[in-house]
Amino acid sequence: MTEDARNEIESLRQNSGTAVLACVDAEGYPALRAMLVLEHESLRTQYFSTNTSSAKVRAFLENPKASVYYCTPDNYRGVLFIGTVAVCADQPSKDFLWREGFERYYPKGVTDPDYSVLKFTAVKGCYYGPGRCQFSIEELEA
Amino acid sequence: MTEDARNEIESLRQNSGTAVLACVDAEGYPALRAMLVLEHESLRTQYFSTNTSSAKVRAFLENPKASVYYCTPDNYRGVLFIGTVAVCADQPSKDFLWREGFERYYPKGVTDPDYSVLKFTAVKGCYYGPGRCQFSIEELEA
Repeated sequence: MTEDARNEIESLRQNSGTAVLACVDAEGYPALRAMLVLEHESLRTQYFSTNTSSAKVRAFLENPKASVYYCTPDNYRGVLFIGTVAVCADQPSKDFLWREGFERYYPKGVTDPDYSVLKFTAVKGCYYGPGRCQFSIEELEA
Repeated sequence: MTEDARNEIESLRQNSGTAVLACVDAEGYPALRAMLVLEHESLRTQYFSTNTSSAKVRAFLENPKASVYYCTPDNYRGVLFIGTVAVCADQPSKDFLWREGFERYYPKGVTDPDYSVLKFTAVKGCYYGPGRCQFSIEELEA
């Protein structure tokens, strides 16, 4: 991986307000949804908030394979992270990800049973742009 | 499906310059890529151009299950079409989709062996926005 590609990947992550999260549904079709980007500490893990009752949660409990895609279509740049999603309904995870205003989505607050955290852990990825490449997550973090 | 939802779906398709196309890779992970939107005649079929040598083509030949996602993250609206992709390397399909400037991607022109057409045919979908719903393609076209 070139230094430029690594910088682009970091910049795509840091500057994206939304990402597209993908699962594989019970019939084997890929299913996608734009999600708010909330957490940036590591390139390996990415957290999203969701309704426990959502189809995504059911899909990830049956099949944790997932991907997360950031892109700026205007300049044809994008990065795809591939890995798995854990559905975290434990209170520490819910406390960790809670943001001001989340009551809009989870009216009962941070302990709302309909609030869950999706923790995505990448194993590999693809970068689309100059210096296009596939990468393992170890390579990216190196 | 409400009339408003149908109008939003049509508007999302008509106003999107790019869509996200998803396949399931050989290891069962969903894989995504932003694609230029080229053709709009029917809500059921959606055409994309790609390099015959691309990983997408290999993936769709092994597993045609696919989805196509249009969204405007700013207002949390999106529509997901779910179906299958046929890889069309026949000359009539290639002639049909060819656009001025495609030499940029396919230097040998409209007969370039590295130019293929992906024909996506939807069977069902989900609309995210006011009046959120799942739909069959027959319902959407009615």
